[in-house]
Amino acid sequence: MTTSRIDDLHVIVPAGGAGTRLWPLSRAGSPKFLHDLTGSGRSLLQATVDRLAPLSAGVVVVTGERHADAVRAQLPGLAADDVLAEPSPRDSMAAIGLAAAVLAQRHGDPVVGSFAADQVVDAGPGFAEAVRQGVVAARSGHLVTVGIAATGPSTAFGYVRSGELLGLPDAPDARRAAGFTEKPDAHTAAEYLATGEYRWNAGIFLVRAEVLLGHLERLLPQLHGGLREIAAAWDTPRRAEVLDRVWPGLQRIAIDHAVAEPVAAEGGVAVVPGDFAWDDVGDFASLAGLLPAGADDVRVLGARDDVLVVDAQRPLVAASSGRLVAVLGVADLVVVDTPDALLVTTRAHAQGVKAVVDAVRAVGRDDLL
Amino acid sequence: MTTSRIDDLHVIVPAGGAGTRLWPLSRAGSPKFLHDLTGSGRSLLQATVDRLAPLSAGVVVVTGERHADAVRAQLPGLAADDVLAEPSPRDSMAAIGLAAAVLAQRHGDPVVGSFAADQVVDAGPGFAEAVRQGVVAARSGHLVTVGIAATGPSTAFGYVRSGELLGLPDAPDARRAAGFTEKPDAHTAAEYLATGEYRWNAGIFLVRAEVLLGHLERLLPQLHGGLREIAAAWDTPRRAEVLDRVWPGLQRIAIDHAVAEPVAAEGGVAVVPGDFAWDDVGDFASLAGLLPAGADDVRVLGARDDVLVVDAQRPLVAASSGRLVAVLGVADLVVVDTPDALLVTTRAHAQGVKAVVDAVRAVGRDDLL
Repeated sequence: MTTSRIDDLHVIVPAGGAGTRLWPLSRAGSPKFLHDLTGSGRSLLQATVDRLAPLSAGVVVVTGERHADAVRAQLPGLAADDVLAEPSPRDSMAAIGLAAAVLAQRHGDPVVGSFAADQVVDAGPGFAEAVRQGVVAARSGHLVTVGIAATGPSTAFGYVRSGELLGLPDAPDARRAAGFTEKPDAHTAAEYLATGEYRWNAGIFLVRAEVLLGHLERLLPQLHGGLREIAAAWDTPRRAEVLDRVWPGLQRIAIDHAVAEPVAAEGGVAVVPGDFAWDDVGDFASLAGLLPAGADDVRVLGARDDVLVVDAQRPLVAASSGRLVAVLGVADLVVVDTPDALLVTTRAHAQGVKAVVDAVRAVGRDDLL
Repeated sequence: MTTSRIDDLHVIVPAGGAGTRLWPLSRAGSPKFLHDLTGSGRSLLQATVDRLAPLSAGVVVVTGERHADAVRAQLPGLAADDVLAEPSPRDSMAAIGLAAAVLAQRHGDPVVGSFAADQVVDAGPGFAEAVRQGVVAARSGHLVTVGIAATGPSTAFGYVRSGELLGLPDAPDARRAAGFTEKPDAHTAAEYLATGEYRWNAGIFLVRAEVLLGHLERLLPQLHGGLREIAAAWDTPRRAEVLDRVWPGLQRIAIDHAVAEPVAAEGGVAVVPGDFAWDDVGDFASLAGLLPAGADDVRVLGARDDVLVVDAQRPLVAASSGRLVAVLGVADLVVVDTPDALLVTTRAHAQGVKAVVDAVRAVGRDDLL
């Protein structure tokens, strides 16, 4: 095991997604990855780069044009060229494929590793070891995913099923991926875990750039051609012209459906175990679990001094408006206080916040989304 | 029955009390009576004066010095001399006694009627008739209270017990008051109502000024002497000097304990029935009942458009910060959103808001009280 830099690894950080279930904290104009959701002092994006920069030869971030300035401001150590701005959202295959094609153009055929900007990960030796074994398996030609050791039968994540060991000397835990699943129901999730073969699919991919682009060329040749054309122009004066012409026509598709699932069916996907704490902070119940617990299991994101709890167990209060927030007599409350919008719900309804966002849109308050 | 003006009735409106259980809506610096708590467009104080001015020869308001400007601003129709400013709080006997002594000085021996500034009353014919019969009974020398027809066995109010009819031709429903009770427990309250003899004590008093002052002279001669001395100087250049010297030494006592209870024991108190809707808006559960019900029994004080309710029954939202308030999946929530403080609780905990105010004080945030 080593935590030293891996010279042929280039990291891609897709920074997208509105974090709808974290409204009103996360907004389209100020999405989840730009926020410090753990009280660490670093945004999820910054923490992602902090975690990966020491392990790799470099990091590029792919984000929407509207967030590019905010991303650059949060990451002053990144070269301007290492923030790739998408003119419009084209889903994860275009984002990651563009970055892989640009990195192939710049560096030949490195291993690229894609790590989403909006996850919370324990950056300890377990993480570094998963990356190290993943890179070894990627060098051998596999599309590699990291299977997170499940802490329970979550219905919020998809699962990856592990097959036989690949027998790679430097990646002794790497196995063939027998397939991916969608988010299961609770019963199915428990069955998965009982087999010992299933782990959470964190959406992390490690793969040689040309292996990824080769799969794409075979499976979605038009998307591949468009991304190659843009990448060829990226570091030239023609970037804007080619982007304007080609990008709008690119297919919208997730990398899972575009490549990971079909290649897994062909036996080309590997899974390495990720034995580290991981969370995608998908909703406020998840967020509560990431914050330190005070007396009465009070969880506060923001200024603890701005929160008063009287006879109320396990509240989560996100206080970012500077006002005093007082909670009396209700258990499991979630109070998210921002300068222009307030949400009050309970942990049990955390997944339902999407319905509130729909209601906000329905009443025409897009200014709050 | 008549609703015409009663020429010998002068109304006293004590405007005091912080409305602690309505925090953070009601504050020491901006108390309950200055707020429109029913969405009527008029503050409780304004509605009180609106209700009583047409029935009487005049209205005076007694309030603390710090609120005098706000009271005058809300009541531009009142003469400056009809807002009596107390240098410091000395409880209800001093407030009402001062006003009665000033009115006696100005008008001889009128009937004075004291109606608190922070109650919500249906100003219909039932109210006018109670006042009319009360004035008749007051003219005959009684200290008269209005017994409100109870709508249920409330534990939030004291009760007044009615005795035999007084037999006054123009006040056929006036009875001797057999006594007052403190706030009872629920069982006792139910027993009260079963007898048919008990009504809610709304703290309304009607009495000839000299009858009230005579009782006071007999029961608390020092307080009486002080109030007479101040009243004699009130409409002279010596007011400030006498107030400064005498007011600080006045006894702090409620009119109930000072006069109403001892005089009731002597048989000198009458009760007239008040068959009209009445509420003292003592807490948020009470406030919710006064607001119009929308779909899902949503009650909003403030801008209805600023409130979004998804899958949440019977919420009360007081929205005065201009922000959007979204409530998801919790029943009976109370959300009170002000520019510098937010309270989240449920109707069942409405009486417990005082504990929150204590906690706010304990953490040194007196700026929010």
